[in-house]
Amino acid sequence: MKKSEGKLKIIPLGGLEQIGMNITAFEYEDSIIVVDCGLSFPEDEMYGIDLVIPDVTYLIDNIDKVKGFFITHGHEDHIGSLPYVLKEVNVPVYATKLTMGLINHKLEEHGLDKKVKRKVVKYGQSINLGEFRVEFIRTNHSIQDAAALAIYSPAGIVVHTGDFKVDYTPVFGDAIDLQRFGELGKKGVLALMCDSTNAERPGFTQSERTVGNTFDGIFADNKNKRIIIATFASNVDRVQQIINCAQRYGRKVMVEGRSMVNIISTASELGYLDIEKNTLIDTEMLNNYPDKKTVIITTGSQGETMAALPRIAADLHRKVSIKPGDLVIFSSNPIPGNEKAVSRVINELYAKGAEVIFQDAHVSGHACQEEIKLIYSLVRPKYAIPVHGEYRHLVAQAKIAQDLGVSKDNIFILSSGDVLELDDTSAKVVDHVQCGDILVDGLGVGDVGNIVLRDRQKLAEDGIMIVVLSMESGTGRIVAGPDIISRGFVYIRGSESLLDEAQEVLNETVMNLEDNGVTDWNKIKNDIKDSLGDFVWKKTKRKPMIMPIIMEIE
Amino acid sequence: MKKSEGKLKIIPLGGLEQIGMNITAFEYEDSIIVVDCGLSFPEDEMYGIDLVIPDVTYLIDNIDKVKGFFITHGHEDHIGSLPYVLKEVNVPVYATKLTMGLINHKLEEHGLDKKVKRKVVKYGQSINLGEFRVEFIRTNHSIQDAAALAIYSPAGIVVHTGDFKVDYTPVFGDAIDLQRFGELGKKGVLALMCDSTNAERPGFTQSERTVGNTFDGIFADNKNKRIIIATFASNVDRVQQIINCAQRYGRKVMVEGRSMVNIISTASELGYLDIEKNTLIDTEMLNNYPDKKTVIITTGSQGETMAALPRIAADLHRKVSIKPGDLVIFSSNPIPGNEKAVSRVINELYAKGAEVIFQDAHVSGHACQEEIKLIYSLVRPKYAIPVHGEYRHLVAQAKIAQDLGVSKDNIFILSSGDVLELDDTSAKVVDHVQCGDILVDGLGVGDVGNIVLRDRQKLAEDGIMIVVLSMESGTGRIVAGPDIISRGFVYIRGSESLLDEAQEVLNETVMNLEDNGVTDWNKIKNDIKDSLGDFVWKKTKRKPMIMPIIMEIE
Repeated sequence: MKKSEGKLKIIPLGGLEQIGMNITAFEYEDSIIVVDCGLSFPEDEMYGIDLVIPDVTYLIDNIDKVKGFFITHGHEDHIGSLPYVLKEVNVPVYATKLTMGLINHKLEEHGLDKKVKRKVVKYGQSINLGEFRVEFIRTNHSIQDAAALAIYSPAGIVVHTGDFKVDYTPVFGDAIDLQRFGELGKKGVLALMCDSTNAERPGFTQSERTVGNTFDGIFADNKNKRIIIATFASNVDRVQQIINCAQRYGRKVMVEGRSMVNIISTASELGYLDIEKNTLIDTEMLNNYPDKKTVIITTGSQGETMAALPRIAADLHRKVSIKPGDLVIFSSNPIPGNEKAVSRVINELYAKGAEVIFQDAHVSGHACQEEIKLIYSLVRPKYAIPVHGEYRHLVAQAKIAQDLGVSKDNIFILSSGDVLELDDTSAKVVDHVQCGDILVDGLGVGDVGNIVLRDRQKLAEDGIMIVVLSMESGTGRIVAGPDIISRGFVYIRGSESLLDEAQEVLNETVMNLEDNGVTDWNKIKNDIKDSLGDFVWKKTKRKPMIMPIIMEIE
Repeated sequence: MKKSEGKLKIIPLGGLEQIGMNITAFEYEDSIIVVDCGLSFPEDEMYGIDLVIPDVTYLIDNIDKVKGFFITHGHEDHIGSLPYVLKEVNVPVYATKLTMGLINHKLEEHGLDKKVKRKVVKYGQSINLGEFRVEFIRTNHSIQDAAALAIYSPAGIVVHTGDFKVDYTPVFGDAIDLQRFGELGKKGVLALMCDSTNAERPGFTQSERTVGNTFDGIFADNKNKRIIIATFASNVDRVQQIINCAQRYGRKVMVEGRSMVNIISTASELGYLDIEKNTLIDTEMLNNYPDKKTVIITTGSQGETMAALPRIAADLHRKVSIKPGDLVIFSSNPIPGNEKAVSRVINELYAKGAEVIFQDAHVSGHACQEEIKLIYSLVRPKYAIPVHGEYRHLVAQAKIAQDLGVSKDNIFILSSGDVLELDDTSAKVVDHVQCGDILVDGLGVGDVGNIVLRDRQKLAEDGIMIVVLSMESGTGRIVAGPDIISRGFVYIRGSESLLDEAQEVLNETVMNLEDNGVTDWNKIKNDIKDSLGDFVWKKTKRKPMIMPIIMEIE
């Protein structure tokens, strides 16, 4: 089966056609290791879908080779599919402490915590698995304990940055280990797989610490107001800075939103959050303190309908409601696609008399152009493989790589499923393996595919008209119906004449069929679909799903 | 019926809970005039809806008072509902020349062009209708011939800006008539209704002419590439500037997209576009010219699936396809909610080898904070009524008004349906009239409401399970079924065991009912819904619509 000897294969199984669902296999002879195992969120037209996870058929087919998962950091787009994938590919998982804390929580929820081997890895530490050695390198990101990976194979070293930024003054821990990137570069790096998310943005991403300064200014200017701050649950440093401010200004902190509560408790347990006693209060206690002595940290900064802040803004929250004079801070930027939802929440907050700050209280967790240039200049890879981002972002990084001297032929914008085979002398996409989206809807994994989605889209667009009739077995005589029942098509009261006319069209069709002695169910169903469909289109320019059902009576 | 004498009523019937659907009634004793008559586009959750138009019951109920429509400019959110509303409230329409050209086109499409009285009005001209006199004042906007209105009533003058910006160097025609705003201010203005769209943005909106300079730079730098420019069909000045550039650089221009072709033809006929002979070419001619000698102007700058550019990018267009090396310019900003769709198109363009410019080749058509301040300072109204924008934008303008000395009590952020009664001594919301959204789906106007939408949402989320059974009349004996047919629920192949179990649950329920001699159809239907619904929820965490249908057999 081996196509060539002594070459490394890099096989992204997701993450290149969408934001999220990051998962990449590295294969050398009989060893496969996998970097990250994320999920993505459904596109708008994926009605009813909760999550999207990768098709890992390639890993299942090569299960004997697969040695382990290496996870760069604890965001959903890097860990979210683990519980699903580990059920089919149960191999050890390696990650830093906080990342593992979040993975543990997930595995417990899925009843997998006793079944999966895990190992917490420190920065600088290496793991040997099969033909690979994987070293964890400290980086900075919008979640603590993010790591880049140096993947050593007999064919050479690949550096995978994970999601990263360069933060010289991080809130917790140290700055990204630039020296190590430089050392690796000196040794000689075969390929660099670098975060492209902000590759279109010039300059440097600001330090997380600048947000703390912004908070401080806002707290100083608003000493008489209750302050509500929405941010990403996983941004523990952001939460730390809010808590620091609260303590400095003598305010109590209430935390709202399930994922926020979870992550704060995990991070506190593991020592990633430093909170003075008596700072945190329960929701029930909130009314015991004057408004100006409280801060609420909440989820929902993306306008997600079911999250805390949008529910508070819409007055649907059980315990918290907006009072005139409240100050609400969005410590976040809308993720593309969420702009309108966020704006809706902002409007609702204003309408209830709150003041809203939605700019300047956030910095990105991803490297901008100057940081990407810095990493390229330290690592000086032979091959560049931009990762993490939409196609436009990958292209933007490819341009940067080219500007910094990587030859155009040595830059690869891969598609999921591509098999890039490389060594020191050449690199080439040699194959394409099965990959794709598996849709998760409730408890169902993969039981909703294109056919079901197309039906949902059709039902959503114009509803359904069901035609039922009972037919005597043998004779083909119609003994009941045909009746029309519709849902999602028109408001029935007020559309009586349209529905009466539709019934007439239907009666005529069925009578014709009966008169001609037609008993072929397919013919009957098709005639009903055609005649009723044509009539409805002519009258309404709508195309409801038309579903004839024939019952056979003995 | 009169509540008070000598007071003016301002009654917005739309446009304040959403972007678009602008329509405001002004009432003084027995006279009503209406400013604008726009549509809005459906929210994401309004499945299958094409357009949203205002409920004008208030106008219909007061039809004898209604004297006419005054239209500020030719954008859909100001003229789009006219064909629907004029069918019920057929009164004369007043507008400037280009605006009327676009209205005419609309009325022709709806077969109303012979039935509605229209009058083209010049800047500076006034129309007397009932108790009102309405003067058209020149403004600038992203479409030519935009007007502000000075509405003279016995209770005082109201200035309505429409959508506007201050462009000292417009591409066509003159700058906004600031002197007239000043004169009116000197006379004394009762209320100012001012565009709030950009009220959150500091500074001044750039002149449309700056975009021309940007184009010139891009054309000069890309002499060897085909250039494709996507912009708003209605921005005739933008189109003019592209054509100017094309002529300057010896390129032929092809226009793609139905609305673009329509507006260019209307604008050319009316003298708003100046195009040299032989500049425009048909699609069929495109291949007769080298790529570097052509420019394509196209619709679809918002990523609309059915518009030209997205179809070109997705390789679905009949006549144009992207070639590597093409330069595509988005001369537009994404309207909130369209960011993701636009990004998708950009990714597809890059993936086909095009270069994409999506920044800096656009300016807004709306006034920023400094322009709003300028208008307030010229007009110096007693009352401020911010209009046109989301709630957050209205609040931002209210702050500006207050900063400029309008007393807080004299600033009104209205809701649609509010009746603001005002004169020189006081202003107050005294009533609320019927108003709201009428949904247009295909040919149906108003036959899709909340019930139908809820059904569509439910169908979209988890599909439908239909249960049919035939029952003998009188005895209640079940002679066929119960059968389950589902759509949009699960992929049927692969879910056989789930569906078999569901059938068993259903059989048991029905047998129980039969054994107990139950013949009450409601009871039967409810039992089926409950038992099947519970089973499905337990097994899948989904809630398909469950629809029992009973056929009675004689």
